[in-house]
Amino acid sequence: MTNIPTIDLLIRHLQRVPYLASKNIYKVASYFLYRSHADIDQLCSVLKQVKEKMHPCSTCYTWCEQGTACMYCTDIKRDKTILCVVEQWYDLLTIERTGGYNGQYHVLTGLICPLEGIGPEELTIYPLIARVNQENIKEVILTMPQTPEGEATVAYITKKLKSSGVLVTCLARGIPVGSQLEFVDRLTVYKALTERRPI
Amino acid sequence: MTNIPTIDLLIRHLQRVPYLASKNIYKVASYFLYRSHADIDQLCSVLKQVKEKMHPCSTCYTWCEQGTACMYCTDIKRDKTILCVVEQWYDLLTIERTGGYNGQYHVLTGLICPLEGIGPEELTIYPLIARVNQENIKEVILTMPQTPEGEATVAYITKKLKSSGVLVTCLARGIPVGSQLEFVDRLTVYKALTERRPI
Ligand SMILES: [Zn+2]
Ligand SMILES: [Zn+2]
Repeated sequence: MTNIPTIDLLIRHLQRVPYLASKNIYKVASYFLYRSHADIDQLCSVLKQVKEKMHPCSTCYTWCEQGTACMYCTDIKRDKTILCVVEQWYDLLTIERTGGYNGQYHVLTGLICPLEGIGPEELTIYPLIARVNQENIKEVILTMPQTPEGEATVAYITKKLKSSGVLVTCLARGIPVGSQLEFVDRLTVYKALTERRPI
Repeated sequence: MTNIPTIDLLIRHLQRVPYLASKNIYKVASYFLYRSHADIDQLCSVLKQVKEKMHPCSTCYTWCEQGTACMYCTDIKRDKTILCVVEQWYDLLTIERTGGYNGQYHVLTGLICPLEGIGPEELTIYPLIARVNQENIKEVILTMPQTPEGEATVAYITKKLKSSGVLVTCLARGIPVGSQLEFVDRLTVYKALTERRPI
């Protein structure tokens, strides 16, 4: 801390921002110290707009700006029978950017993590189950990472969906496109080998 | 970008913040999306206070909150005959934390870098020269890094101070305290060897 109350206050706020390494906190504080009044006013106006305008879609829980339903849920050209489940709203953007998917989405807003007290009720899993049971969905694609939390979430959702008879799939694991074999980690090569497919 | 205007606006602001890796921008945006109204209001109030209350000390150019002179320049218990020149205000904090310095400071606010169009007039070098010529200063300690920009700045200041007859020193380079020789880089070991001293 700096012994200058206002700078210390700023630093305490910056320390809460994720992905800001503590060794860089003073440099980031410096960035704001040297910004103009107009720049700071603009940033604050954007932050306030974010809180005022953004809300989760009432169906899929991605962020939307207008109405209660997002542009994916309201797009009549999208396939209503296939549902892609993502951990966070920005994972949805990654799927969209591929241009290879035209179905519905569901944003979990996190993963099951008992150690951090995150159970299914902290996420949007119950609404997901309800959607699958109520809507005419034929396939649910799970895109969660292969981490303990990701696997726990996949296991929980798969169990809950068993009775619905819906097809549950996950993303293919394998060699990244364009990667040289020697630079790919052992587990991925193993996965790619055991899940090999005819050309 | 997300196609959601307000989130895109937030992301453009976050992209300007230094030390925020672009791969983490969406996660940081998520942090702000999930903050409460009260949290956002508090952060904005702090940012505005920073702009309203903070100004550079009229003598040494470190940030100060009250009056026109900082706590170092106004502290009568500090040695007025020795001046430590630092690149940024947070470097001053690093020197203070050692508890081994009780003199004056001067914050350059950057380094000379012709490639980026930063000359002595963009920094506080002229006021530094004026201070040394007007005040009763016997030693100037230069703490800039050993980079091309740091070396250029040291060379420029040293040349400008030559006629004043003041003693100009730099920080000792050598093996970091507690470091094992084998893990220290070659140039540092070379410096430590050529600048060896009797015990
Ligand atoms: Zn939606
Ligand atoms: Zn000062």
